[in-house]
Amino acid sequence: MKKNEKIIKQLIKLLGQEKVYSSLEDCLCYSYDGTFRTGVPSVVVRPSSTQEVASVMKLASQENIPVVPRGAGTGLSGGAVPVEGSVVIDLTSMNRILKVDPANMLAVVEPGVVTAHLHKTVEEMGLFYPPDPSSANVSTIGGNIAECAGGPRGLKYGVTRDYVLGLEVVLASGEVINCGGETIKNVSGYDLCRLFVGSEGTLGIVTRALLRLIPKPEARRTIRADFKTIEEAAETITAILSAGVIPAALEIMDDVTIRCVENYLRVGLPLDVEAILLIEVDGPALSLPEQVKTIAALCQQYGAARVRVAETKEEETELWRARKSVSPAVVQVKPTKISEDATVPRKNVPALIKAIKEIARRYNLDIVIFGHAGDGNLHPNILVDKSNPEEMERAERAIAEIFQAALSLGGTLSGEHGIGLLKAPFLEMEYGQSGVALMRRIKEALDPQGILNPGKIFGGSRN
Amino acid sequence: MKKNEKIIKQLIKLLGQEKVYSSLEDCLCYSYDGTFRTGVPSVVVRPSSTQEVASVMKLASQENIPVVPRGAGTGLSGGAVPVEGSVVIDLTSMNRILKVDPANMLAVVEPGVVTAHLHKTVEEMGLFYPPDPSSANVSTIGGNIAECAGGPRGLKYGVTRDYVLGLEVVLASGEVINCGGETIKNVSGYDLCRLFVGSEGTLGIVTRALLRLIPKPEARRTIRADFKTIEEAAETITAILSAGVIPAALEIMDDVTIRCVENYLRVGLPLDVEAILLIEVDGPALSLPEQVKTIAALCQQYGAARVRVAETKEEETELWRARKSVSPAVVQVKPTKISEDATVPRKNVPALIKAIKEIARRYNLDIVIFGHAGDGNLHPNILVDKSNPEEMERAERAIAEIFQAALSLGGTLSGEHGIGLLKAPFLEMEYGQSGVALMRRIKEALDPQGILNPGKIFGGSRN
Repeated sequence: MKKNEKIIKQLIKLLGQEKVYSSLEDCLCYSYDGTFRTGVPSVVVRPSSTQEVASVMKLASQENIPVVPRGAGTGLSGGAVPVEGSVVIDLTSMNRILKVDPANMLAVVEPGVVTAHLHKTVEEMGLFYPPDPSSANVSTIGGNIAECAGGPRGLKYGVTRDYVLGLEVVLASGEVINCGGETIKNVSGYDLCRLFVGSEGTLGIVTRALLRLIPKPEARRTIRADFKTIEEAAETITAILSAGVIPAALEIMDDVTIRCVENYLRVGLPLDVEAILLIEVDGPALSLPEQVKTIAALCQQYGAARVRVAETKEEETELWRARKSVSPAVVQVKPTKISEDATVPRKNVPALIKAIKEIARRYNLDIVIFGHAGDGNLHPNILVDKSNPEEMERAERAIAEIFQAALSLGGTLSGEHGIGLLKAPFLEMEYGQSGVALMRRIKEALDPQGILNPGKIFGGSRN
Repeated sequence: MKKNEKIIKQLIKLLGQEKVYSSLEDCLCYSYDGTFRTGVPSVVVRPSSTQEVASVMKLASQENIPVVPRGAGTGLSGGAVPVEGSVVIDLTSMNRILKVDPANMLAVVEPGVVTAHLHKTVEEMGLFYPPDPSSANVSTIGGNIAECAGGPRGLKYGVTRDYVLGLEVVLASGEVINCGGETIKNVSGYDLCRLFVGSEGTLGIVTRALLRLIPKPEARRTIRADFKTIEEAAETITAILSAGVIPAALEIMDDVTIRCVENYLRVGLPLDVEAILLIEVDGPALSLPEQVKTIAALCQQYGAARVRVAETKEEETELWRARKSVSPAVVQVKPTKISEDATVPRKNVPALIKAIKEIARRYNLDIVIFGHAGDGNLHPNILVDKSNPEEMERAERAIAEIFQAALSLGGTLSGEHGIGLLKAPFLEMEYGQSGVALMRRIKEALDPQGILNPGKIFGGSRN
């Protein structure tokens, strides 16, 4: 306790009283993220400049105190859950879009910029920042970078790592480095940029990001197709992609998801099908009718019970409404949802869905399955009540089996949520001892004291 | 010498006589790459499996001997030039395409596969592997990964790092690790894949690669536009990209390049213009006429002296012939060409061209400038005679100034050739002491003995 008081005093000296929060009430507000895990920090700081972040890291390094960087705290793997006794660095005050440069098609932003705010700003200029995590209205670019956020558009446009051109990063020591730069091509030394992207705050704190933008697609169209069997839906996906059409989004909802959403919305979703595919194409307006025709024809050919093409903006919104209501719909069923993102090569999507359904049955759990089928990135959501320890324990065992199933199908633990706290125990399952040892060596090289976001990715209290 | 003999004996025991080459004649064949630097290894091995590579690395690590991995040796930064006394691991015997999986749109290849062979194989299946270094007919995928090769298509399609989904890597210790995997989305732990891509053989040896493929574009069209001034050409580039059209290639040739090529080909290239732009669009056939019209109109609007649109396959080939003849044309002028790849944000292309021309004048050197203007990746080629030490010395000073100019324009030392030996002395200019120190810490974490491709990226004989 005494140590904490000393640290708090020093932080106030560095940042000023108004940027340091140490009451229990304040600290409790920072004790959770989008998962069910919690941890109460000792103190929270809200720096407004790179220099302030650097000064906090210098102090933390000198005093050997754990630091947990944080954006909006919407993460789904526990990456922003504080370690007890840590300093949380809340980066949401650093929320300026510093530059949008249309000629070079890039933006320079602070880490606290809300993703949707960046979307809106650049789209008004005819530009496009593709990564679109579902939390985009709340999540920050810094958090997106830390977890390498994805979203439905990943299939066609890639994920956050594909749009980070350069970073300013505060290291564990408080040193500030820059990597990458304004050029699209850059092979000057090691790819530090991509090393920091997805490193979940364990290697450094991003204080500025240089993001690549692309021209905003001219137009888009949405198609919904209902399938009696998961296999038909999966074959249709392969057929569409093999026909040379890459949709901007290719989303799937399984029967349990459909039932949840229909109970919630009452919009007449079909209750006698195993899967709905929602397919969006975008690009030059002239190329879309042909693409829509191809996709609709393939859906029919591969057995769709029904195909609907949105002809107006309103119809498009209506088709997407079902998909976007999944989260509010499922929390009507049970209060806690554990959102996973097991990901497999796309042709193994039906096998993974079957495996998850079998696991749900065996552990007597409600699991809805939806997600980005086009890139094999599924979101099985396990619906539980976190006040029921027996159910939580069953859920944890089921999750371990889901991971095992994904890996045995050539997949990965995480497509877009990161490892964080929740999946740390499983990392070795994917990478083996040598792979994890290699990652640890990198962690030790960059953060020898282990003060940056301890416990994340590798587990344990300090790595 | 005695040590060498012992090593050679051990290598023969591990791999068999037929895979070990130690005569001076053989070693001389491996003493150079695409640059003017040379270095003679002690012995060359040509393993045919991951296990053999691992066994060589185990021996090298045990005996503390430097190892230089090598593909086709076409690199332009000296990345494959052996250190004296080293073991060269020639990976060209591991040249199988192990799998092309159309449903998951990926290929699994050994590192020795020639890039153009992969292009051809997947294109016959309607798929596309975009990275297209000029050396594609000779270079290998392993070398492309080591240097993160680019090419004209980088503007629209990105570079090698954007197509590497997974790697099998032999570490300095001889351990074999796997990173990444078959899924497009993967945020499981640190991004080891991208750390190895572009690491120039200094962190590990790639023995297998899982590459992402995309559907082959349905059609393409080529446009040539001639400009009286560099500025007009540059403004046209910005106008095209701002109009939401991303060409598959957007190449520039300056007046000196045009004159060289015209002397060589005699095809009637205009000798009264400062720049030719060669623009290729691809995509759905239906969308191309509109894009061609937009581009041609913008070229006119921004002052092109002449615009030609290829209407047939033959005309397309003819338009590209001038660009593809640059390398044979310039070696007619002087025997040695030093090919650089200074890269700037695209709107600074005219400023960089001006700076390079001024440097050429000041040092009395022939410098042709061409390259991938759409992504700011220029290739100033300094034409010299390596048997003239005074000229070489002037060239080296000019190169240092070119780098300085690129960096001061917000650019990078290397867009697609890597740092290798040639640019190692300049790395700190780009990254500062802290940035380079960070890279060195990563190098030490992965290769504590410094036996993997010493001297590359960081300079010195061992890093």
